[in-house]
Amino acid sequence: MSEVSLHKPFPASQVPAWDMETDVAVIGFGAAGACAAIEAASAGAKVMLFERNSGSGGASGLSGGEIYIGGNGGTDAQRAAGFEDSTEAFATYLKMAGGPCADEAKCDHYAAESLNHFAWLKAQGVPYRGNYLPGKHIEPTDDSTLIWSGSEAAAPFCHQAKPAPRGHVIQHMGWGGGRPLVDILEAKARALGVEVVVDARAVALVADGDRIVGIVVRIDNQNRFVKAANGVVLATGGFVMNEEMRRKYCPETFKLTTPIGDKDDGVGIMLGLGAGGEAIHMEQFFTTCPWTMPEIHAKGVFVNAAGQRFINEDCYHGRVSRCAVDQHGGRVYLLLDNAHFIQPMDFAQMTIAGTGDSWEEVEAELGMAAGTLSATMAFYNAHAHEGRDPLFDKQVPILTPLDQGPFIALELNFQTSYFSFFTLGGLKTSAHAEVLDRTGVPIPGLFAAGRCTSGLPAWGHGYSSGMSLADCTFFGRQAGKGAAQG
Amino acid sequence: MSEVSLHKPFPASQVPAWDMETDVAVIGFGAAGACAAIEAASAGAKVMLFERNSGSGGASGLSGGEIYIGGNGGTDAQRAAGFEDSTEAFATYLKMAGGPCADEAKCDHYAAESLNHFAWLKAQGVPYRGNYLPGKHIEPTDDSTLIWSGSEAAAPFCHQAKPAPRGHVIQHMGWGGGRPLVDILEAKARALGVEVVVDARAVALVADGDRIVGIVVRIDNQNRFVKAANGVVLATGGFVMNEEMRRKYCPETFKLTTPIGDKDDGVGIMLGLGAGGEAIHMEQFFTTCPWTMPEIHAKGVFVNAAGQRFINEDCYHGRVSRCAVDQHGGRVYLLLDNAHFIQPMDFAQMTIAGTGDSWEEVEAELGMAAGTLSATMAFYNAHAHEGRDPLFDKQVPILTPLDQGPFIALELNFQTSYFSFFTLGGLKTSAHAEVLDRTGVPIPGLFAAGRCTSGLPAWGHGYSSGMSLADCTFFGRQAGKGAAQG
Repeated sequence: MSEVSLHKPFPASQVPAWDMETDVAVIGFGAAGACAAIEAASAGAKVMLFERNSGSGGASGLSGGEIYIGGNGGTDAQRAAGFEDSTEAFATYLKMAGGPCADEAKCDHYAAESLNHFAWLKAQGVPYRGNYLPGKHIEPTDDSTLIWSGSEAAAPFCHQAKPAPRGHVIQHMGWGGGRPLVDILEAKARALGVEVVVDARAVALVADGDRIVGIVVRIDNQNRFVKAANGVVLATGGFVMNEEMRRKYCPETFKLTTPIGDKDDGVGIMLGLGAGGEAIHMEQFFTTCPWTMPEIHAKGVFVNAAGQRFINEDCYHGRVSRCAVDQHGGRVYLLLDNAHFIQPMDFAQMTIAGTGDSWEEVEAELGMAAGTLSATMAFYNAHAHEGRDPLFDKQVPILTPLDQGPFIALELNFQTSYFSFFTLGGLKTSAHAEVLDRTGVPIPGLFAAGRCTSGLPAWGHGYSSGMSLADCTFFGRQAGKGAAQG
Repeated sequence: MSEVSLHKPFPASQVPAWDMETDVAVIGFGAAGACAAIEAASAGAKVMLFERNSGSGGASGLSGGEIYIGGNGGTDAQRAAGFEDSTEAFATYLKMAGGPCADEAKCDHYAAESLNHFAWLKAQGVPYRGNYLPGKHIEPTDDSTLIWSGSEAAAPFCHQAKPAPRGHVIQHMGWGGGRPLVDILEAKARALGVEVVVDARAVALVADGDRIVGIVVRIDNQNRFVKAANGVVLATGGFVMNEEMRRKYCPETFKLTTPIGDKDDGVGIMLGLGAGGEAIHMEQFFTTCPWTMPEIHAKGVFVNAAGQRFINEDCYHGRVSRCAVDQHGGRVYLLLDNAHFIQPMDFAQMTIAGTGDSWEEVEAELGMAAGTLSATMAFYNAHAHEGRDPLFDKQVPILTPLDQGPFIALELNFQTSYFSFFTLGGLKTSAHAEVLDRTGVPIPGLFAAGRCTSGLPAWGHGYSSGMSLADCTFFGRQAGKGAAQG
């Protein structure tokens, strides 16, 4: 008898008896799994959804519920706010955001279908107020729909892709729209007859030759064999909570201390690899320290331990944070003047490392050599007064002189500040959410979506808010459709 | 009948007939394969070595023949030159050089055995003159033995691991010691009865259950089945010549234009993956632009497109180059004054981008804003006169003022200069060169060494010359011993 293993499909010929039978088995009940289940059930398939927790949510449930949407002339919310977002600009931005890791086919597919996807989300019952909230927000603190959620208006993106805000947030008062988003998707899935099995941990795939025909789930300490006649969908999230996988595949994250996610243990990636799939861009991760809260801090300037700027700070907070983590010295400083300083959020664990009536005093308090940080700021301010940033092309109005003392340096320390992070690498899938083997051929019966794949958010330096949920929901749908067809 | 594929072992039960039979089959005739063959044959095994080219060499044959050796109180050459290199300092350096990707078990194993390995190399007939050549060299231009070949004397390495030169070069006049090194190893292997089959490309492994028991090689357009009773050694090099693999696994290298290697097509990595192995750190690559030639240029200062320094330039030329490639703007500049400038080598394709009687004039000629590069150099020179580098801790004597005009900026352009590169990621193997599956268990009968594995040179930012050949020769030996034992 073969062993039940994450790392190798169990042979169908050795299944003692099928404990359950379905057309489509979905593993994981975050947004990706929910959307897969909805689409598969809508296509007429019998769907069972297995979740290791006692309820839905996953990392999606912990998120802001923001989805990156645009193109095709713009959504209702974009157009109402005066943004005519072209599909070409949208696809270009997605590809730039994917950097060297971009999957062009996925970017093109999503850019073309994004507005239809938005309509679909609404049709599932996800509410959108439809209004635009200007400014620089991590999530809306009210129930607004549309925010700038990436680096669209910042260089180099703005020079190649006409900027538009594309972060579409579920109508929900305050932060944490991910929970109600998943609740709505869950209700829809249940209404369509999806059978949800909780406290059920996937421990193996079942294969008949090269085709995936089922899964083994662990329920009440027993292995249960589930036949999935048409297909299996992996929607288990990333591997940020699996230290062994991080050590092997994404060791740079050990610089940082705050993994975020739910039980993202990489199980879907392991199952997919065991079935002959491949994992790509496993070294990529998103990170952010929430330095744009309060919002006025978005006008600050970052320097590294050598007192040098390293990025146009008008980029997305996560891009700035990811570049910050590349700097030597284990920390960076956010510089603010009296006109732009409010006490930062406690949870960010950013400390006041230096203050002074001049930038020279701040520099001295930080223990930096004279003429480093102060020279950086003199140069910055002189050009900011002219509305220019010759070094990094930061754009007005975020480009602002910081010359009204007293002055302050907040330390963002990689090991003590709140640098949250999650992984971006995962299974290589087609633009139709098929899990691909190392030759690029789909593995029959196996689909995947969300952070157990490498998707739209492929490159840590280019991440924008809403990209992961866009990827989860859109490619989750493709996975569900594909699995239903078998 | 199963298909013969790189991606899945061929079932032994379906082998029509064994065309050849041996105890150990080695794939690839660079230094790793040669050392594996020597050890396996020395252990009494019948050994066949298959090489897709018409002769030995591989990337090793194109190299400088330099091997990173030290510890245990120092080699004869180190001690004669006054360097008492401790095993602890050696292991510490290796681990720092591996950065987040370091394999501590391999570092410790090699540090402990390095002197024995040196003795073994000499016993195979590799000659070493035994002398030390001071200075900063890429390879000795004479027949000297010992050079500084890494960042040992530079921060942060020098503060944690007592510096010693460890680049040991075969006695050979001028560059290119890799060719005679492989010739000597080849002669030894042949003398031990190793049967070498050239023009023979490995196209599959053969498995009996989980155990690898042979290979399929393509000879004269025919598949030949080779039984390897005890084991198979993969020694096929990296994947720098496989654009499809680079696109998937190491896309950042497309910034650069000069892959170096032989036919490094990643075939060993694919074979190992197909057998259930795993590949790690596939995004890592070595790169260098030979900016320390002429040697006096090693005293230059690098700035990025914003006119900022980014590294202590006394590091290994490859570490500086790798950090250079991280800078935005597609290029960096090497700044030199009249006292430290000689026309650079043509092949480096570094162009003179700006000159002037002051750094201000150079800055203007480069189109940089006033007060960028010139301020960087004013700050640098002021502190260099005091023997300090407060920003990056560059050490004297390489730390030198550059204030004797006229001044010059050489452009190192990622797309037009000679940024050679090769890949560092590969199969995960044990410190005994066993190919490990995703659970860390050795795959029976399968061994690997050199650049088809992730080994001592694991991290592009920490590479030092001689690390790859150290890894190839030492772990090649482990692979050969292991395969002979079966």
